[in-house]
Amino acid sequence: MRRMDIRSIEWKNDSIRIIDQTKLPAKLEYLDIKDIKTLWQAIKVLKVRGAPALGAAAALGVYLGIKDVRAPDFAGFNVQLGKVIDYLGSSRPTARNLFWGLERMRFVALKNKSRPIVAIKKLLFVEAQSIIEEDRVACRKIGEYGSRLIAKKDTILTVCNAGILATIDYGTALGVIYRAQEKGKDVKVYACETRPLLQGARLTVWELMKNGVDVTLNCDNMAATLMAQGKIDKVIAGADRIAANGDTANKIGTYSLAVLAQHHKIPFYIAAPASTFDLKIRTGKDIPIEQRKAEEVTELFFKDRMSHKDIKVFNPAFDVTPHNLITAIISDKGVIRPSYLKNIKKVIC
Amino acid sequence: MRRMDIRSIEWKNDSIRIIDQTKLPAKLEYLDIKDIKTLWQAIKVLKVRGAPALGAAAALGVYLGIKDVRAPDFAGFNVQLGKVIDYLGSSRPTARNLFWGLERMRFVALKNKSRPIVAIKKLLFVEAQSIIEEDRVACRKIGEYGSRLIAKKDTILTVCNAGILATIDYGTALGVIYRAQEKGKDVKVYACETRPLLQGARLTVWELMKNGVDVTLNCDNMAATLMAQGKIDKVIAGADRIAANGDTANKIGTYSLAVLAQHHKIPFYIAAPASTFDLKIRTGKDIPIEQRKAEEVTELFFKDRMSHKDIKVFNPAFDVTPHNLITAIISDKGVIRPSYLKNIKKVIC
Repeated sequence: MRRMDIRSIEWKNDSIRIIDQTKLPAKLEYLDIKDIKTLWQAIKVLKVRGAPALGAAAALGVYLGIKDVRAPDFAGFNVQLGKVIDYLGSSRPTARNLFWGLERMRFVALKNKSRPIVAIKKLLFVEAQSIIEEDRVACRKIGEYGSRLIAKKDTILTVCNAGILATIDYGTALGVIYRAQEKGKDVKVYACETRPLLQGARLTVWELMKNGVDVTLNCDNMAATLMAQGKIDKVIAGADRIAANGDTANKIGTYSLAVLAQHHKIPFYIAAPASTFDLKIRTGKDIPIEQRKAEEVTELFFKDRMSHKDIKVFNPAFDVTPHNLITAIISDKGVIRPSYLKNIKKVIC
Repeated sequence: MRRMDIRSIEWKNDSIRIIDQTKLPAKLEYLDIKDIKTLWQAIKVLKVRGAPALGAAAALGVYLGIKDVRAPDFAGFNVQLGKVIDYLGSSRPTARNLFWGLERMRFVALKNKSRPIVAIKKLLFVEAQSIIEEDRVACRKIGEYGSRLIAKKDTILTVCNAGILATIDYGTALGVIYRAQEKGKDVKVYACETRPLLQGARLTVWELMKNGVDVTLNCDNMAATLMAQGKIDKVIAGADRIAANGDTANKIGTYSLAVLAQHHKIPFYIAAPASTFDLKIRTGKDIPIEQRKAEEVTELFFKDRMSHKDIKVFNPAFDVTPHNLITAIISDKGVIRPSYLKNIKKVIC
């Protein structure tokens, strides 16, 4: 089957074009974002989401935020640039790629501060496009490296959406699956629905079906039973931030799958590009975890009440999987195995 | 706080009065069921649910089904009785109490077969009322035994609804919590929402809040994080069927919590009356597990589409927790600890 040709995010018509992921699977709708407030909001409510896609959104967002700035000199321009970067950085705290994208843009501006503002703007645009192109390539490399770990007829459990929609166009965890499929490995997938926002049920199922991958949906609390019944050969998840020791923040529920995989002696893999690693952070304890609104849990998309209106709700968006539960991390630089503290540096740097 | 005075099921106005649990938490609405087809349907769609409540529903259902039967002799009556029992038994396969209730009713009829039909009918009514009263007492005993395992200021994680709504009026797992609260132990509860039908979010949260218990709602995939953060002292779940070796079928997601509890060294308890034990079944492998409709997962209450309409869905209603993951079973006959094969017989029989 020919791969679905969509891009989750790109620069088009002087604006950032994204797929509005809150509309899927009901409809594939694009949004042209023309200002950074709209972008900030789109990131906050997960119209655009997924760590690598957020790296691209951040970079394009910086360009969007400064392209019309008028400043007499670099100092003045840099103040505006700093404001844009700080503002976009305040949208969501966990995904490393968002900050990595912002930092790369800041670095390019500073490196070229002696050039005319108009030239700096052009270089920032080029940098954002590079980030996008690099992610495209990185996902294909992750897919290739990861696919070598997949056996013929493997059934793979995944969580949230680490696919086309979370990256530019191929995916990290799902990139591994796509590549294995391209190689004729005939893989099957179970997709955890991923409460509360159902990225698995809405997004992963949608893109895997579109690409002809055999996928079955399960509620998150059914994963253990699938494993106990011998239905799962491997678990592969994406990542939002990976600490120097391999501890990995990813969508809430990932840690649970890692514990369950260990109990059932099933390999548990993380798939992520180098841009998701945060080597300044020693362990998962230091990764900031976003807490989100109670209404995400008590109302389905803020519409249908599913619980008492005054109930207290525990709703972290992410959890941290300790490195000792991770069989290997599949990066675009190669497959990293324990000891992570040593091998992440060796492979990524 | 005074305990909420409600009964989930009772005989009233020549019909079976139940709380329509599909309407909660939006409204507390009673249904008067006057024929067994309506009862069968109510059981099937979980208007009445919870293993002990299903035992009561089955017993009252048998009386409802035979009270107007006219038969020339016991043989004729017994044919009709058998049809009613088989029909009600076909509603849901997993909860032991349903079949236990039906068998008790059949036994009373057979034991009294030499009496006039009208007397047998009366005895069947009395038996159904006994089942209800015994469950009321059993839940209070479970509460008392279980409460002795609870320390002051314990935080307890539970799944699905094993409370007032799942029994006659006190609960099994939640009975333990109510009794601990009555004893001034100041317990807190985390309630897993329990996908797909959200019995935790809808029912457990509702009844705990009504009874003044400090409760916080979490998605099922967040339980591991709660445990890792040291927020959970004990896990208590109900049961639908317990095999002779202690393997326990309960709402899907229970097994997952048991594995996670073991990993985090947290005690994991099952609370259930003697009527939930099925000593003819050796291990959990022989417990029939109900598979339910895909639409329970892909549509919220068959209304809002949450995934692709053609997606394959894995949707078992229950899972089996192996006995080696269960710290103790809290029954109305006392707390049962391993080895279960020996001790269940000793305590229950």
